[in-house]
Amino acid sequence: MLLAADWGARGSATIGGAIATNAGGNQVLRYGMMREQVLGLEAVLADGTVISSMNRMLKNNAGYDLKQLFIGSEGTLGVVTRAVLRLRAAAAFTQSALAACADFASVAALLDHMDRQLGGRLATYEVMWRNFYDRTHAVASPPPLPPGQPFYVLVEAAGSDEEGDAAAFEAALGAAIEREMVTDAVLARSGRDRDAFWAVRDNIPALMSLAPIRTYDVSLPIGAMDDYVADVLAAAAQRLDIAQAAVFGHVGDGNIHLVLGLGEYSAARVQAADRIVYERLAPIGGSISAEHGIGSEKRAFLGQSRSEAELALMRHLKAMLDPKGILNPGKVI
Amino acid sequence: MLLAADWGARGSATIGGAIATNAGGNQVLRYGMMREQVLGLEAVLADGTVISSMNRMLKNNAGYDLKQLFIGSEGTLGVVTRAVLRLRAAAAFTQSALAACADFASVAALLDHMDRQLGGRLATYEVMWRNFYDRTHAVASPPPLPPGQPFYVLVEAAGSDEEGDAAAFEAALGAAIEREMVTDAVLARSGRDRDAFWAVRDNIPALMSLAPIRTYDVSLPIGAMDDYVADVLAAAAQRLDIAQAAVFGHVGDGNIHLVLGLGEYSAARVQAADRIVYERLAPIGGSISAEHGIGSEKRAFLGQSRSEAELALMRHLKAMLDPKGILNPGKVI
Repeated sequence: MLLAADWGARGSATIGGAIATNAGGNQVLRYGMMREQVLGLEAVLADGTVISSMNRMLKNNAGYDLKQLFIGSEGTLGVVTRAVLRLRAAAAFTQSALAACADFASVAALLDHMDRQLGGRLATYEVMWRNFYDRTHAVASPPPLPPGQPFYVLVEAAGSDEEGDAAAFEAALGAAIEREMVTDAVLARSGRDRDAFWAVRDNIPALMSLAPIRTYDVSLPIGAMDDYVADVLAAAAQRLDIAQAAVFGHVGDGNIHLVLGLGEYSAARVQAADRIVYERLAPIGGSISAEHGIGSEKRAFLGQSRSEAELALMRHLKAMLDPKGILNPGKVI
Repeated sequence: MLLAADWGARGSATIGGAIATNAGGNQVLRYGMMREQVLGLEAVLADGTVISSMNRMLKNNAGYDLKQLFIGSEGTLGVVTRAVLRLRAAAAFTQSALAACADFASVAALLDHMDRQLGGRLATYEVMWRNFYDRTHAVASPPPLPPGQPFYVLVEAAGSDEEGDAAAFEAALGAAIEREMVTDAVLARSGRDRDAFWAVRDNIPALMSLAPIRTYDVSLPIGAMDDYVADVLAAAAQRLDIAQAAVFGHVGDGNIHLVLGLGEYSAARVQAADRIVYERLAPIGGSISAEHGIGSEKRAFLGQSRSEAELALMRHLKAMLDPKGILNPGKVI
């Protein structure tokens, strides 16, 4: 069996922390975020009351679904102390490919195509912009695909029928090449190949060559993503002379990470960069935090993603559940 | 594209009502309940404030996920006025089979087997107890399988690769027959065959032969289901002389519906029947409402599924959001 949530911090994250932050990661496209893995939980309120909602069932509409209050609230409404997690039958076989696309329209079209062709088996759709891949590919020798192409997609399907699933995956990828969504592609023929794809995708340390950096975790409609990234990079270059950046993320989930090389580090430059990234999200309905939460760092920008009425209701909830402000003070709201 | 939620009341249900009740139905196993279909919503609070959380993204952790407050709260915390729904790529092909099982252990084993074999394609796992099928099968002539067998399972997979998916489905079902999980089975070879399976499953009018009836919507762990149903039916027979019943439901989701023929209708008999059904759920962690909500009818029994601390927090939320009690008064809490 499988706990479907999986992310880069898998070596250090705790279950309670993952629930409190509604963590996301690499398989959200297929299995959902941590919220979807939680059947029940126990939380301790600020006044010491223990709310035990240790539900074990997929379906339960006996009153308000109180666990939703605590998932993703970053410990500010209660402390999660126990949980019942949904496990899935682990897929026996995974097909992996790394594909190159000439433009973002092809990246979006390929996602739609693979989703339709593979039904519920599509598990991962990770995209690396050229400015990411060119920095990270050297971790694999030789690199899975040559650098310098506009976009790289790490796409995976997970299933239980090795022959049938592999044939369906190859056929879907072949059709994408024929329809010119994909300009170059390599299939993983072994676990070692697959590990090499992931090593490139996970080679975040290579981005330290951009240091000092500021990293972002935003989500937005896929249709708006290409223009958004271009706008942010153009404004960063123009206003802050930021020439160095890397963009990657869980495009299948509408979630991308931007890493901006600040050139030099100062509070003013950080704030200016934050503004460039966050202020462009409000008009397109994007979120300043897809999966990393708000904490204290993004608190000042919460109004970019949420209305005054929403903020007021959040404060109202916080005041009701934690009138003395003792739960993770200074975070979220 | 497909709105994945689907249920018997598809001809009369409204979107707002489906969100307010967190409706379930026939495809929860694959796509989740209404809660999982709602990306964003707008709700009007008791004081007239409009909470507009029209999120369009799969991932958004910018503060508390306020929409969760309104989904499944039956209009008692706010009135849902707009929504952004998640659509899925509609599956191009569906495989359907009706299988008979000799005992409930085989029903549970078959679910696990089909889930593993079909990966993300398993869409439906509906079970009819003999006391249901024997009453409903005559709507199809001839019936898909002869009546009189202990359990009938309507199992469906949905995918996009007609040949590959059909082969995988037949292979999985064949293996189940070989391993003696299934004693008899028929595959749908046409849309007409499939319609016949569903006609039997949806032949709720045939249960009116049990009238006067009381219907129940409970959820519980699958491992406890067989004993629970036997206990309820034995107690109903012994204490209330109820000999007539029909049991069916979304067993893949842990959700079953019981229909008890009361013999004669009186408030006392209804209450006694409710007790028999609900009081056995608390010890096994079951829910008195899987997908039909609480309304006014089950309010008195909410304590069978929820602790005092949970009920207190629900009242606290209700008092905060609707201090004058004007939103759907008398319901839920």
